[in-house]
Amino acid sequence: MINPQTLKGFRDFLPIEAKKRQYVINILKKVFESYGFEPLETPALEYEEILLGKYGDEGDKLMYRFEDNGKRKVALRYDQTVPLARVVAQYQNELSMPFKRYQIQNVWRADNTQKGRFREFLQCDIDTVGTSSPLSDAEIIEIAASSLKALGFKNFKIFINDRKLLSNISIKALTILDKIDKIGEEEAIRELEKAGESRDLINQAKGFETSERLKEIKKIAIKLGVAANNIEFKPTLVRGLDYYTGVIFEIEIDGYDAGSVCGGGRFDNLIGLFAGKQIPAVGCAFGFDRLIETMEELKLFPTDLQRTKVLVTVFSPELLDESIKACEILNANNINQELYIDENAKMEKQLKYADRRQIPYVLIIGPNEAKNSTVTFKNLKTREQKTLPLNQALPLFK
Amino acid sequence: MINPQTLKGFRDFLPIEAKKRQYVINILKKVFESYGFEPLETPALEYEEILLGKYGDEGDKLMYRFEDNGKRKVALRYDQTVPLARVVAQYQNELSMPFKRYQIQNVWRADNTQKGRFREFLQCDIDTVGTSSPLSDAEIIEIAASSLKALGFKNFKIFINDRKLLSNISIKALTILDKIDKIGEEEAIRELEKAGESRDLINQAKGFETSERLKEIKKIAIKLGVAANNIEFKPTLVRGLDYYTGVIFEIEIDGYDAGSVCGGGRFDNLIGLFAGKQIPAVGCAFGFDRLIETMEELKLFPTDLQRTKVLVTVFSPELLDESIKACEILNANNINQELYIDENAKMEKQLKYADRRQIPYVLIIGPNEAKNSTVTFKNLKTREQKTLPLNQALPLFK
Repeated sequence: MINPQTLKGFRDFLPIEAKKRQYVINILKKVFESYGFEPLETPALEYEEILLGKYGDEGDKLMYRFEDNGKRKVALRYDQTVPLARVVAQYQNELSMPFKRYQIQNVWRADNTQKGRFREFLQCDIDTVGTSSPLSDAEIIEIAASSLKALGFKNFKIFINDRKLLSNISIKALTILDKIDKIGEEEAIRELEKAGESRDLINQAKGFETSERLKEIKKIAIKLGVAANNIEFKPTLVRGLDYYTGVIFEIEIDGYDAGSVCGGGRFDNLIGLFAGKQIPAVGCAFGFDRLIETMEELKLFPTDLQRTKVLVTVFSPELLDESIKACEILNANNINQELYIDENAKMEKQLKYADRRQIPYVLIIGPNEAKNSTVTFKNLKTREQKTLPLNQALPLFK
Repeated sequence: MINPQTLKGFRDFLPIEAKKRQYVINILKKVFESYGFEPLETPALEYEEILLGKYGDEGDKLMYRFEDNGKRKVALRYDQTVPLARVVAQYQNELSMPFKRYQIQNVWRADNTQKGRFREFLQCDIDTVGTSSPLSDAEIIEIAASSLKALGFKNFKIFINDRKLLSNISIKALTILDKIDKIGEEEAIRELEKAGESRDLINQAKGFETSERLKEIKKIAIKLGVAANNIEFKPTLVRGLDYYTGVIFEIEIDGYDAGSVCGGGRFDNLIGLFAGKQIPAVGCAFGFDRLIETMEELKLFPTDLQRTKVLVTVFSPELLDESIKACEILNANNINQELYIDENAKMEKQLKYADRRQIPYVLIIGPNEAKNSTVTFKNLKTREQKTLPLNQALPLFK
């Protein structure tokens, strides 16, 4: 016998979880599409040279890399931004610019699995490629906000900053600034001094004033529908150290302190690595697992993601036809039904199945019901039971 | 500069293709869910021992295998049936049986890339686990047929056979029988003789009569709604050599001779390899790429998968507010609109963008329109253009 187990950091999503994920994905897709964003899919495997060196040393270390059967050096998708950059360069003549695409696929990182980090997780990205307009920056922020609203979030804060404001600060110091919220100011000062940087850097950064560009973006975002008090300039926001060149932002949900659920910014130089010329871009990614976790905490999932309303049981193989007929009638009346799939199963087992699946009603057609052209239906919550002609029962299922 | 390229056998799906794929996936999901099937997701990577030896020598050879950073021997998902078997064994107490699940994820095979074969491709599976009832066999067949009908296919044939009928034939001979349709009878006879098998085997197999079980399954499938003349007993149907133990079936589309678009059967022993006890199961998988290809050939895709009806252009940064207001009005009237995302772009560029994206209408608000509270809209197909108040234009976009 083979031991059935999943790899550390990898997850199976059984139906209850998988349905929640689909619920979130469907809402996000709908919002993205309503702004004219279109789907893109890229392969799980890329030539390793496409991905290496784009995510810093840490990224190269955490990347899943191997040699395939043809001795090609390949790597598993690490994010969706670098593949987007490759796609834009590769199909420049086929894509209509500005290119607005969304992408919802898994990425893989051989990360430490503590603290709710996983080695396979879903990313949801939107990016607008081919324009450096402040309108495109503002739209990304507005879509991020709309998406959160569509998922049911009411109170959140969008922190924005401009990477250009940070251009005189060393990467070492930025790394420390980036952690202020996590480690606290005192510890940040200690680390700065240890790194030979000025302890005044924090106050200096805090004193930065917003840039003209940020003001413009914020103004347009508000015009597009973002509530003014939802956007806040945060001069110490750094957002990693990789490819951002302009506006950067992160969204935090009020009362959820496990980090941001969405983050993004402008990256005008990344695509050039593949295209040989500058192609500006702006976008953001949702942290899917954090979204799910926060929605659980705030009880934002509908209580009933169970689609089937009625389980039509099978009393005996001889009465299977009666049950099939009932299914057809329910179906014709747009009542979501499901036929129990074993004509020899005991009724008790069938009722237990409905219970576990959280199907609200069961329908039973035994010999008496068949003779009298009636059905017995049972409400599994109230345990109420009635026997009557099916057409009279129909309104009760709605 | 890094050369932007995809690995051989791997594909990017740009929006036009990606939208077709989503269209098919959405229809399949809807059908599967209408029968009470629920989603399952499993990881892309598994311990290699979970997958090895389940698909024959060929499978082991084509599997993507490597050592991860923690020296674990891992393999990329090769199909969705073995992961299902693992899941059922691993979560026996959490799953409600019968367990009806669908799974739509990519699989990876380092196959020869000739003949439209890909190294990454999507599989769409449905399986019912935990019952050996003929009703469950028949339902899988009926769902396969319903799915094809929902996609727009009208004429197809479901070939069925019973693996038990073939139990006295050697694996070597079965491999040859399996290829009859491809290589022809003469060549099959030659190969049989070369393999030391009787040339009569073909006639013998052809002479097999359907089993009682098959008759029962066919009877129920017809009751469930499958047209009787769509199901045909095919005594030479073998369907690979792996885990099937009972009914097997394949569906071919009339007029499309590149092979079956769906196939499946009963596999009562596979899950036992992981569970240590027999758990019966039946299911099928759709060949997603073949479905797409056939649908293209038969023109079954809607002509317009473009969601955006109106591109709202931006005449100048000063008039951006007017365009945003128009978007809001269109939106409030449930007309799918999209704001052009660069407030400095020339109008010509904006119109060209709408054209390439196949957006049917554009809306222009220049200084005159703004002054007179009107809009100019243009039908990009007919090139007709009208200037009038927006509320009078609304019905034209529907």
